[in-house]
Amino acid sequence: INQGFPEVIFGLGKRPEQTAAIFERLAQTGLPVLATRCTAEAFAAVQAKVPEAVFHELAQAITLRVPEENDRPIGTIAVVTAGTADLPVAEEAVVSALAMGCRVKRIFDVGVAGLHRLLSKRNELNEAQVIVVIAGMEGALASVVAGMVDIPVVAVPTSIGYGANFGGLSALLGMLNSCALGVGVVNIDNGFGAAALAATIVRSGSREAGRFHDV
Amino acid sequence: INQGFPEVIFGLGKRPEQTAAIFERLAQTGLPVLATRCTAEAFAAVQAKVPEAVFHELAQAITLRVPEENDRPIGTIAVVTAGTADLPVAEEAVVSALAMGCRVKRIFDVGVAGLHRLLSKRNELNEAQVIVVIAGMEGALASVVAGMVDIPVVAVPTSIGYGANFGGLSALLGMLNSCALGVGVVNIDNGFGAAALAATIVRSGSREAGRFHDV
Amino acid sequence: INQGFPEVIFGLGKRPEQTAAIFERLAQTGLPVLATRCTAEAFAAVQAKVPEAVFHELAQAITLRVPEENDRPIGTIAVVTAGTADLPVAEEAVVSALAMGCRVKRIFDVGVAGLHRLLSKRNELNEAQVIVVIAGMEGALASVVAGMVDIPVVAVPTSIGYGANFGGLSALLGMLNSCALGVGVVNIDNGFGAAALAATIVRSGSREAGRFHDV
Amino acid sequence: INQGFPEVIFGLGKRPEQTAAIFERLAQTGLPVLATRCTAEAFAAVQAKVPEAVFHELAQAITLRVPEENDRPIGTIAVVTAGTADLPVAEEAVVSALAMGCRVKRIFDVGVAGLHRLLSKRNELNEAQVIVVIAGMEGALASVVAGMVDIPVVAVPTSIGYGANFGGLSALLGMLNSCALGVGVVNIDNGFGAAALAATIVRSGSREAGRFHDV
Amino acid sequence: INQGFPEVIFGLGKRPEQTAAIFERLAQTGLPVLATRCTAEAFAAVQAKVPEAVFHELAQAITLRVPEENDRPIGTIAVVTAGTADLPVAEEAVVSALAMGCRVKRIFDVGVAGLHRLLSKRNELNEAQVIVVIAGMEGALASVVAGMVDIPVVAVPTSIGYGANFGGLSALLGMLNSCALGVGVVNIDNGFGAAALAATIVRSGSREAGRFHDV
Amino acid sequence: INQGFPEVIFGLGKRPEQTAAIFERLAQTGLPVLATRCTAEAFAAVQAKVPEAVFHELAQAITLRVPEENDRPIGTIAVVTAGTADLPVAEEAVVSALAMGCRVKRIFDVGVAGLHRLLSKRNELNEAQVIVVIAGMEGALASVVAGMVDIPVVAVPTSIGYGANFGGLSALLGMLNSCALGVGVVNIDNGFGAAALAATIVRSGSREAGRFHDV
Amino acid sequence: INQGFPEVIFGLGKRPEQTAAIFERLAQTGLPVLATRCTAEAFAAVQAKVPEAVFHELAQAITLRVPEENDRPIGTIAVVTAGTADLPVAEEAVVSALAMGCRVKRIFDVGVAGLHRLLSKRNELNEAQVIVVIAGMEGALASVVAGMVDIPVVAVPTSIGYGANFGGLSALLGMLNSCALGVGVVNIDNGFGAAALAATIVRSGSREAGRFHDV
Amino acid sequence: INQGFPEVIFGLGKRPEQTAAIFERLAQTGLPVLATRCTAEAFAAVQAKVPEAVFHELAQAITLRVPEENDRPIGTIAVVTAGTADLPVAEEAVVSALAMGCRVKRIFDVGVAGLHRLLSKRNELNEAQVIVVIAGMEGALASVVAGMVDIPVVAVPTSIGYGANFGGLSALLGMLNSCALGVGVVNIDNGFGAAALAATIVRSGSREAGRFHDV
Ligand SMILES: Nc1ncnc2c1ncn2[C@@H]1O[C@H](COP(=O)(O)O)[C@@H](O)[C@H]1O
Ligand SMILES: Nc1ncnc2c1ncn2[C@@H]1O[C@H](COP(=O)(O)O)[C@@H](O)[C@H]1O
Ligand SMILES: Nc1ncnc2c1ncn2[C@@H]1O[C@H](COP(=O)(O)O)[C@@H](O)[C@H]1O
Ligand SMILES: Nc1ncnc2c1ncn2[C@@H]1O[C@H](COP(=O)(O)O)[C@@H](O)[C@H]1O
Ligand SMILES: [Mg+2]
Ligand SMILES: [Mg+2]
Ligand SMILES: [Mg+2]
Ligand SMILES: [Mg+2]
Ligand SMILES: [Mg+2]
Ligand SMILES: [Mg+2]
Ligand SMILES: [Mg+2]
Ligand SMILES: [Mg+2]
Repeated sequence: INQGFPEVIFGLGKRPEQTAAIFERLAQTGLPVLATRCTAEAFAAVQAKVPEAVFHELAQAITLRVPEENDRPIGTIAVVTAGTADLPVAEEAVVSALAMGCRVKRIFDVGVAGLHRLLSKRNELNEAQVIVVIAGMEGALASVVAGMVDIPVVAVPTSIGYGANFGGLSALLGMLNSCALGVGVVNIDNGFGAAALAATIVRSGSREAGRFHDV
Repeated sequence: INQGFPEVIFGLGKRPEQTAAIFERLAQTGLPVLATRCTAEAFAAVQAKVPEAVFHELAQAITLRVPEENDRPIGTIAVVTAGTADLPVAEEAVVSALAMGCRVKRIFDVGVAGLHRLLSKRNELNEAQVIVVIAGMEGALASVVAGMVDIPVVAVPTSIGYGANFGGLSALLGMLNSCALGVGVVNIDNGFGAAALAATIVRSGSREAGRFHDV
Repeated sequence: INQGFPEVIFGLGKRPEQTAAIFERLAQTGLPVLATRCTAEAFAAVQAKVPEAVFHELAQAITLRVPEENDRPIGTIAVVTAGTADLPVAEEAVVSALAMGCRVKRIFDVGVAGLHRLLSKRNELNEAQVIVVIAGMEGALASVVAGMVDIPVVAVPTSIGYGANFGGLSALLGMLNSCALGVGVVNIDNGFGAAALAATIVRSGSREAGRFHDV
Repeated sequence: INQGFPEVIFGLGKRPEQTAAIFERLAQTGLPVLATRCTAEAFAAVQAKVPEAVFHELAQAITLRVPEENDRPIGTIAVVTAGTADLPVAEEAVVSALAMGCRVKRIFDVGVAGLHRLLSKRNELNEAQVIVVIAGMEGALASVVAGMVDIPVVAVPTSIGYGANFGGLSALLGMLNSCALGVGVVNIDNGFGAAALAATIVRSGSREAGRFHDV
Repeated sequence: INQGFPEVIFGLGKRPEQTAAIFERLAQTGLPVLATRCTAEAFAAVQAKVPEAVFHELAQAITLRVPEENDRPIGTIAVVTAGTADLPVAEEAVVSALAMGCRVKRIFDVGVAGLHRLLSKRNELNEAQVIVVIAGMEGALASVVAGMVDIPVVAVPTSIGYGANFGGLSALLGMLNSCALGVGVVNIDNGFGAAALAATIVRSGSREAGRFHDV
Repeated sequence: INQGFPEVIFGLGKRPEQTAAIFERLAQTGLPVLATRCTAEAFAAVQAKVPEAVFHELAQAITLRVPEENDRPIGTIAVVTAGTADLPVAEEAVVSALAMGCRVKRIFDVGVAGLHRLLSKRNELNEAQVIVVIAGMEGALASVVAGMVDIPVVAVPTSIGYGANFGGLSALLGMLNSCALGVGVVNIDNGFGAAALAATIVRSGSREAGRFHDV
Repeated sequence: INQGFPEVIFGLGKRPEQTAAIFERLAQTGLPVLATRCTAEAFAAVQAKVPEAVFHELAQAITLRVPEENDRPIGTIAVVTAGTADLPVAEEAVVSALAMGCRVKRIFDVGVAGLHRLLSKRNELNEAQVIVVIAGMEGALASVVAGMVDIPVVAVPTSIGYGANFGGLSALLGMLNSCALGVGVVNIDNGFGAAALAATIVRSGSREAGRFHDV
Repeated sequence: INQGFPEVIFGLGKRPEQTAAIFERLAQTGLPVLATRCTAEAFAAVQAKVPEAVFHELAQAITLRVPEENDRPIGTIAVVTAGTADLPVAEEAVVSALAMGCRVKRIFDVGVAGLHRLLSKRNELNEAQVIVVIAGMEGALASVVAGMVDIPVVAVPTSIGYGANFGGLSALLGMLNSCALGVGVVNIDNGFGAAALAATIVRSGSREAGRFHDV
């Protein structure tokens, strides 16, 4: 089990040179590094100081020393989205989860307006230890997925939509009021936060497992 | 086809004696009469003046001269609910639709946390001309139903739920932001308004039908 | 009756190349295609791949294979607006309704501050099977139109206005609280959603008509 | 012209004995006295100290020494309501306006869902110097009235309605966003405030008139 | 007395060519014309068609044929502001009031944080027939002015301020909840609407005056 | 591992006789039964039909056949509260978690205004597999606890507080915006939902453990 | 200088017996005790256990061992209110400040609608070390007082008012957006919190004074 | 003790030439001058007229004649931040406090997700006379700091964060609902306002001190 969480930089509201300075300092720890909400300019500034840094454009994230697949031995996180517009948030979650040493399975474009696609994924969903559901508009996907499985669901409301989604409020309230059990909500568009919660759940399970079986 | 909509009294904010006085006056028109949001006290006041009036306790509604089944020749409205707490609103819709001369089919307790119950009703849903979907919490039922059928859905958010439903706001926003097509939203807990829209759709279709086929 | 709804792409939050890729794929189905919320850049990307695609600039929509007028045999949708600022939303509704195989009648600039213009359109309104009312500010037009006719009204709040319209909230709440019967509300600025609901109503009526008269 | 505004007590949040003590003190000034938002208990406490005080139950107001009709020489305020539920607010406005020495004309139950009733009152409306429009739900009445006349409209949103009126917010926003000119808005359910603004307008006009014609 | 209100164009959400086309058409009526919320681009488009049109940059307004001072015989509107940031709204009110044939007096920069400046204007305030108070932040200026005079106050909340002014909401709520009597509120930043209400009050007074004195 | 979740009844908005009827039916399944948000009256109605049912007054919950401690072999949920006013929600969480077969540890009254009490519980916190943090006011406790441990935190905002907590909104937003990692939020006052999420996490871990170690 | 803050119990959401049990325990510390938001029933329960406890009915507070005037040597807090309805909050502030060992000066009923009363208190205001301003409606009193003096103002919004005060939101936003300098805001109706902040300021000044002069 | 507050210009919503004109006028008073929320363009305009003016880029502030350290004899204000994104607000507070003649101590990057850093600053915090706490997200830092010290805390919510911080609302509500005593809140991102309140507290203490010890 990979012990270390990466060092994390939250790029929103930081200037490129601030991000780069912090990134350089963290790179010297030898740990994995993850910077979220970074523009291409921020990446340019980082790369000038840490050439091995990798930019994930869709996710707007920069990583360094993400664990190889063999270093992610347990815990699969399924990342599920309703539609194309949720991709940037989903990729932020995916990149973050990988940086935290988890295995990830993408299940994209399975919104509730066409249930058959989602229903056909039941087995894949059931193989995950945690499911991250990312949806905008009314956010109903979280309720429907949570109703299909007996696995913890981390729900991420997204801010895309027509006017009365009020910057993600509709999906946020929808997910908080889910009629299905086992849903924990994180902030609007917060793919990183979802990954962090999912990774914490994965580790907690592994630790617990160790406690009961190793001794 | 029953031409006349009933005369309608909106009981909220009216005193029993005000409701009774208006009810008595409308009863003299000979048309059906419908009063919504009426307490037992309001009904007592009405009954003292119009003994044939009928009280629908769960719906909090009073009716007079509701058309017999034979006078409701076309147009079935399916009234679908997610759970037990939606019953008062659903019954307001049912009583109102009947008073407006529509046929009604109740499909209750088919919330999305247990999709199988809802999926098993697909045929019944497809037999309706309009579907009224009544749901609280996140209101996801409207999206899922609208995704299953190609029939207009009238969505009614209800106000029951834990704190962050904010008096029905969560279901309201959820339904307005539905990712499925063909959903029109009415006010929170407004079973009567849903029935009125559904009945107007039913009639509009009949009229149109008449226009094309009778001539 | 035209069976097929078009394939639809919701352009908001998609990059031009994403939109173009989906458009190209859908164009191969042979069905009509409709893409909403598309910028001129998105259209350029689409056109490079599907040269017959048509751009509707005011509506910010792209269409392919919209049914000819003879393929739109029944059901007229009246699209009613209060003022000039509602035009983009109205045109999104018009283009969408045409793509869905409906006939459309534009009744523009009939806001309630000058009732005479609206009152003079009573006959035209009464010839529609569904009326789409598009209004910003206080959205009162929906109530006034619904009070004038006995036809379903699909109400679209728009987001234009001075500060306290709060991005369309004033018109949205106004329409949800309409004192007139027969109003179903869709999302703010959602001309496409209004057309989809209106088209679903039109078809539902035709189908019903068929059921009663053809047999 | 009646110079004196009455002394006013705002009863909300005051205990009966507090209201009574203030009322007694003000009664000694010899001026008219007006207390708003008073329960029957508050009136009992007042009456015990000032027996000539008069209770207006529907308006929840107590008055003393309201000017006789001959002491209200100029300025008619039309008080217009949409429906029965607006009556308590309307009567608070009426009682307050009378206490401030204005003439009042009641035009009740002329909501926009049935335009004919309102249109038939055009002449009466045009005879007023100020029009107070009181309406709940979507508050569209203010826009429609203001569009019909060239007289200042004081708009009072009321809090009655189904869930998404959010305690009067829908009517408040509707009135603030009125597409018609000449509308000034006061607080939700604030019949007294509307009367005060209307009376101030009436006096300002009279004073102005005096300035131009007396000299 | 100047009978005619100008023809008005609300420029928000209109393209320059739309504004110019409407402006040209209205110019042909021979009446004064007023267009609000116009950018410099919109003015360029207007000027190309109607060379005599005048641009008021701070007010973002275009006028044509504003009445000369001798054609504005009665009714002074005082336009009062708290601070410099309120100037654009104030000038919109001033230009609009002049276009409507009113006399205007500017009383600027008299915010309540330095009461002495405001108190020194008491006489000027008392010479107005209507006072338009324009303030952002907490909007307290409306209450304080209304408490100083016995003249109708038209209150305009502005949207400038630190974060918790929420786009003008703080001043809007402050003005709606004014503890002083005689305040009517218009929409956030709506200088034009304030002028229209003020002008309507001025005329209503003049008409009333005429009714009592001329006959 | 206890396979079965209890059958659950959500008592809010149900009448005592409705609750009792459902409870009786579910009791016949032989599974554990849990009813939340039940008044003493609801319990009386239940007890009349199912005499072995147990009422948990503080939690407002009714249970039947809660698993004995020996049937709850793995997974400890720590339930942490800030203050006394959070007790009803905390006890709803505790009773629910026990009914779902989890072990529970109460850590009450450790709000952040006196950090020493909380810091002294670090070891107890670290022994849990999931931590449910229940706090009103600003909800800061969730952030501080999540910062202290590397265990998933399920955060429950409560609705108690002075005015600007707006029914729990302050704690809800606080928890959603937590600067610490590993926090999933459930609805305001939703002790039951927190327990359901926590129990799902506990089982997910056990299952995963099984998958890796049993084979 | 009195070192000890009292032990404090926040009564909201606590049952009488809970309050009494905590009160009894704290009484044994020998320190002053203060319990806020206590009903008469709560006081009865407390008094049964701690007979010397004193009930302040208007303030809804219970105290024990409040320091005598001689034990409150420095620091005067002026408690200023706009109107009668603010009294309960003001008395909560007064009782709390006394329990915290401060001297208090009441300046009541000096709302901004009648500026002269407030202006006549300038000297009294200037003698305070901190001023607590308590006002509902638009809360303008805080801005006006802060503009008159060069002393810290602790502003307490109150929840009384007509509909659009939204439970104190109008005064809260007004005070947060104050255009005058030196205003710190506490929660709606939070007289106790205001006293605590004021007392902390008073002590901080004394301590500072000590640091400079005693050494 | 430095008597004079600087002259202050609030740059938001002002054009560079407006700011420069006011700055030049105020520079002639000989007092310190402070302009907040100024862009580089505004500074260029100011510098052209007042060459000695100094620009503080991070703080977006311009100063003139800030008192030298020897002219700031008493009162230390600690400015505490949670993270890097709070820097612009913090620097606005620092520059403002210096311009008002206070001594300032920066304690940055001590957010509650890593309590140890904050706990290690206890002594530095205790040396301040007032503490300004600046934090975004949930704003928990204010509660934790206030719980650690017995010194007045001025809390500044910042607007940076993921979606549900709603422009600073989450931190604002968090700070208003602080469970710790002695917290006064200013507007979102209002570093200047925080400094003004802190400086007023510092002076009030000094004055009080003088009153007791000098005589
Ligand atoms: N079928 C669907 N069910 C639920 N949400 C959807 C669906 N389709 C799209 N969305 C949401 O609508 C937004 C736009 O989706 P897309 O058009 O695929 O980019 C995204 O936030 C999706 O989560
Ligand atoms: N002294 C004041 N009283 C009331 N509002 C003010 C005051 N000063 C400025 N304002 C408001 O603050 C905003 C900015 O003012 P200014 O700095 O003059 O541009 C405007 O919305 C003003 O209404
Ligand atoms: N003249 C005033 N100025 C400011 N606020 C006032 C004034 N009069 C009353 N209020 C506020 O209005 C509410 C009711 O006041 P009262 O009628 O005195 O009980 C209280 O919240 C007061 O703060
Ligand atoms: N550990 C923390 N505790 C509290 N707030 C934090 C913490 N870290 C960051 N923040 C807040 O999160 C935002 C971004 O912080 P930073 O990443 O340091 O720029 C700022 O508003 C901070 O106040
Ligand atoms: Mg599940
Ligand atoms: Mg469908
Ligand atoms: Mg109709
Ligand atoms: Mg008019
Ligand atoms: Mg006045
Ligand atoms: Mg943690
Ligand atoms: Mg001051
Ligand atoms: Mg403290």
